[in-house]
Amino acid sequence: MTVPQSAIEFWFDFSSPYSYIASEWIEALAARHGRTVRWNAILLGVTFQAAELRSPVDHPIKRDYTLHDFERSARYAGVPYSLPDPFPIPTQNAARVFWWLADEQPATAAAWARHCLRAYFTRNVNLADVSQLKALAVEFGIDGEVAEGVWTSPEAKARLRRVCDDAVAHGVFGAPFFVVDGEPFWGNDRRGQIERWLQGGSFQVTAHGDL
Amino acid sequence: MTVPQSAIEFWFDFSSPYSYIASEWIEALAARHGRTVRWNAILLGVTFQAAELRSPVDHPIKRDYTLHDFERSARYAGVPYSLPDPFPIPTQNAARVFWWLADEQPATAAAWARHCLRAYFTRNVNLADVSQLKALAVEFGIDGEVAEGVWTSPEAKARLRRVCDDAVAHGVFGAPFFVVDGEPFWGNDRRGQIERWLQGGSFQVTAHGDL
Repeated sequence: MTVPQSAIEFWFDFSSPYSYIASEWIEALAARHGRTVRWNAILLGVTFQAAELRSPVDHPIKRDYTLHDFERSARYAGVPYSLPDPFPIPTQNAARVFWWLADEQPATAAAWARHCLRAYFTRNVNLADVSQLKALAVEFGIDGEVAEGVWTSPEAKARLRRVCDDAVAHGVFGAPFFVVDGEPFWGNDRRGQIERWLQGGSFQVTAHGDL
Repeated sequence: MTVPQSAIEFWFDFSSPYSYIASEWIEALAARHGRTVRWNAILLGVTFQAAELRSPVDHPIKRDYTLHDFERSARYAGVPYSLPDPFPIPTQNAARVFWWLADEQPATAAAWARHCLRAYFTRNVNLADVSQLKALAVEFGIDGEVAEGVWTSPEAKARLRRVCDDAVAHGVFGAPFFVVDGEPFWGNDRRGQIERWLQGGSFQVTAHGDL
């Protein structure tokens, strides 16, 4: 009898290019190690505030580098990408639909996340625009009025607030953020470390040299 | 006749764990691709101010993660590491000696950098303590009084200020920071991208899936 392995926790924001890139590799990486992924849509605005951080594109000098690095990191991962306009955008409506699906039809929530992330980062579909988001919902197979009813409902708003507060309470200060067996990893660029962690314990210090 | 390849520019701060880790792999990586490394000691305080950034350990929530990630990233790279106490520290004296060597005995400057980084991050030698830094200089083969004469001299202070201002003017907002053939890379975690860049152009976008 094998012990069931715990899921990889994956926090993402719909307006985060590094979250989008990670969303394209996390399932295959997990599957290679017999793991599943629990997707968690959050709002980076909430975690930035809790950790007293600003977006990397809100800093002088760092902004230009970061915009370039989004695109280069996507190419490095082999993921189609183009910087959307406008960027960044508020993403609470897409996130509320995500959590409604996670509660009502859990098998479809991650697919909705991928649908929205790909639409924003490869087809410039503005997730903050109500009519564009309704059209995306219809494409996905959700009635547009039903989707709008979700993102305007007090329950969905409260649900997302609770999720974001929980994320902060768990130490999440950015996205993408992962927890594997209690071990936290922040950033698309921790992919190699996550993979080695799942391979089991070759995080060993060697002597100086020969690196 | 082969065209000489340009050096990899490498900016580091003596109190930056990620700079220390990168200092342990950058020479071997460069050598694998027939490149040399031009080491540049800077003060992160100057670049943080220019980019309106704070140290990752100065943020609530992010601080605990970052201290853990320093240590895990060192293990991932196979580099001995222990968090020094005190941390972080002012490093202008070590940096002034670095630039004095770079100007006077260029072949030894990188060795001084490695000597100091290893002392701070594996033997808890406080580079901000004048007597400890003088002892390190003696270990390295520099007379202690000569070293102190360097780091108290107006010329060395002006030299380091100029270097930091130049770094900011070149878009450097953190450390480690690398420029390869004009392409900027920030962070110890860009090692894989730098290596692929030097291998020449396999930053190609593939289709979705199979990542």
